[in-house]
Amino acid sequence: MSSVDEIVLPAPADFHVHVRQGPMCDLVVPHVSQGGIRTAYVMPNLIPPLTTTDAVIEYRNHLQNLDPKTQWLMTLYLHPDVTPDEIRKASKAGISGVKSYPRGVTTNSSSGIEDYTVYYPVFRAMEEEGMVLNLHGEVPSDPDQNISILNAEKHFLTHLRKLAHNFPKLRIVLEHATTSEAISTVLELPSNVACTITAHHLYLTIDTVAPQPHHFCKPLAKEPKDRKALQEAIKSGNPKFFLGSDSAPHPTTSKAPGLVEGGEPSPCAAGVYTSPILVPLVATLLESFGALERLEGYVSSHGRRFYNVPPERGQELKLKRVKGQKVPSILRGEGTEVVPFWAGKDLDWEIVE
Amino acid sequence: MSSVDEIVLPAPADFHVHVRQGPMCDLVVPHVSQGGIRTAYVMPNLIPPLTTTDAVIEYRNHLQNLDPKTQWLMTLYLHPDVTPDEIRKASKAGISGVKSYPRGVTTNSSSGIEDYTVYYPVFRAMEEEGMVLNLHGEVPSDPDQNISILNAEKHFLTHLRKLAHNFPKLRIVLEHATTSEAISTVLELPSNVACTITAHHLYLTIDTVAPQPHHFCKPLAKEPKDRKALQEAIKSGNPKFFLGSDSAPHPTTSKAPGLVEGGEPSPCAAGVYTSPILVPLVATLLESFGALERLEGYVSSHGRRFYNVPPERGQELKLKRVKGQKVPSILRGEGTEVVPFWAGKDLDWEIVE
Repeated sequence: MSSVDEIVLPAPADFHVHVRQGPMCDLVVPHVSQGGIRTAYVMPNLIPPLTTTDAVIEYRNHLQNLDPKTQWLMTLYLHPDVTPDEIRKASKAGISGVKSYPRGVTTNSSSGIEDYTVYYPVFRAMEEEGMVLNLHGEVPSDPDQNISILNAEKHFLTHLRKLAHNFPKLRIVLEHATTSEAISTVLELPSNVACTITAHHLYLTIDTVAPQPHHFCKPLAKEPKDRKALQEAIKSGNPKFFLGSDSAPHPTTSKAPGLVEGGEPSPCAAGVYTSPILVPLVATLLESFGALERLEGYVSSHGRRFYNVPPERGQELKLKRVKGQKVPSILRGEGTEVVPFWAGKDLDWEIVE
Repeated sequence: MSSVDEIVLPAPADFHVHVRQGPMCDLVVPHVSQGGIRTAYVMPNLIPPLTTTDAVIEYRNHLQNLDPKTQWLMTLYLHPDVTPDEIRKASKAGISGVKSYPRGVTTNSSSGIEDYTVYYPVFRAMEEEGMVLNLHGEVPSDPDQNISILNAEKHFLTHLRKLAHNFPKLRIVLEHATTSEAISTVLELPSNVACTITAHHLYLTIDTVAPQPHHFCKPLAKEPKDRKALQEAIKSGNPKFFLGSDSAPHPTTSKAPGLVEGGEPSPCAAGVYTSPILVPLVATLLESFGALERLEGYVSSHGRRFYNVPPERGQELKLKRVKGQKVPSILRGEGTEVVPFWAGKDLDWEIVE
């Protein structure tokens, strides 16, 4: 088979991205389009979390100011402040979805949910308004029940099944799936349930996460068989699976254990930062496991179809094959810096400007 | 039940400790006795590894010079240089055991663990000489077979069973067990097979390891049910289980991801450093899960009986209950520094000098 050397993709979209606040936001917002993304679906876990329409719109305006070329799709943070009325208001304001964080499982999730049934009226309003429910699919750890970050996603699947059953018209996305069990559950559920897969979970396993804080994220990358299941989901071409990078920058200081005189060393923050290299990275990874022909579906058409956000004309992205395009070891901004995923490694594809 | 406030232990022993070389060795050797240990069983994984009797004896002399009060028991590194003749020489020189590491058991590391059979003549000589075989019980990772650092220990148990079967008179120690499967395998094997359990694996699970490089070690701490199995093994009072701390200091710089301009960030070194607080830490942990009455067996009599190293008179260690004895956040030596396990946390016991 002769290998392809150039690929044109209809407007790539990242259906799960963190662009933060303050100096980090200034640094990373331009990276989204640099990584080849035209439409970015933005997570609401700021400090404080974005629990009102007004706060989300203010944030969207800020992002649009920083980068007017990128289409910013916005989400609310599921929280007691989010009422059915707030949902209708959010929908009118063009907010696309609501993100649910189980309490305490990842960055800035201390305001997360504990029980879904109290939100059923909210979900009903979302169903009516056509808003999407984005689920961080992990239950909180509980040593007494042997629930840890290794099986937190498996334990969440019961909740996913129940929500899918109770809200058959609500579009639900299981975000950043990491286990073979998650993939098979999404496959068995109806078409209102989709699933994002990150770029880094197509590459990492527990072996490469444990010694490297820059690879530490939630959900944790799991076993080789799980990575294989994610790769196979993409290889299958099933439109339920699409790109949500969960690109989540943290300053380098938050990625090293912080020495606290007289105290415990602070832990490392959870998150892998892929935005600046996203589409070339995805092309490189998909080719490595024989799925390059699924690139368009994974980075563009599947997600766009699920979200009803068709690609605009003139927003195509052209990639060309390249020999050893090295990822920078660090990206520096005003008062902050971040180490990108694959720092120092070679990409096989680059964006043609 | 009235709580005990003072404990006297016959000469505590640590049957698995790394005391390194150079400035780190100078820093950590005094910590062994400071942590309450009278007899230390020393690992041979130096650079280069200690594969000859002469090298081990030179190292022992160095340790004895640094701390003549502590009894240093020594091991050889299993390697093609270690012949049956070398075993007999080592035994005459008072070397206690031979340590096997998963990689490096053969010159060709890709053939790995399967090649134990090439060492059968060595094991026979060890059986005759009464030397102990110390096993790092993990097979190398192999993504194609779904072998990762999560199940590497489980996969090793086949090798343990086979060795125990083929060498019924060889004393074998499965070092630093971390899984419920390892515990049940050791229980079902005859009394020539014992098992060390570290202090930190009685406390950590994957949840507290993943975000904290100072908790990253091999074998990785696993699920809550595994930690429970280790705790239950000690609680049972079965003499097969005893303390081998695997205390393994790394300089702070090796515990943070190293930024390499133009290259990949270096990974964090594997190892948890418990020596300076070992016996008070163990007392605190055992009490936390209701096993304080097993302290003497775990830190002294079980291991000493297995190794035939009876406690000397006058070497008792006295502990007393204390309120909030804070572990130092860092320990500094000449040109090196190390963060101890439990830095900034409170111990419930301290050593009475």
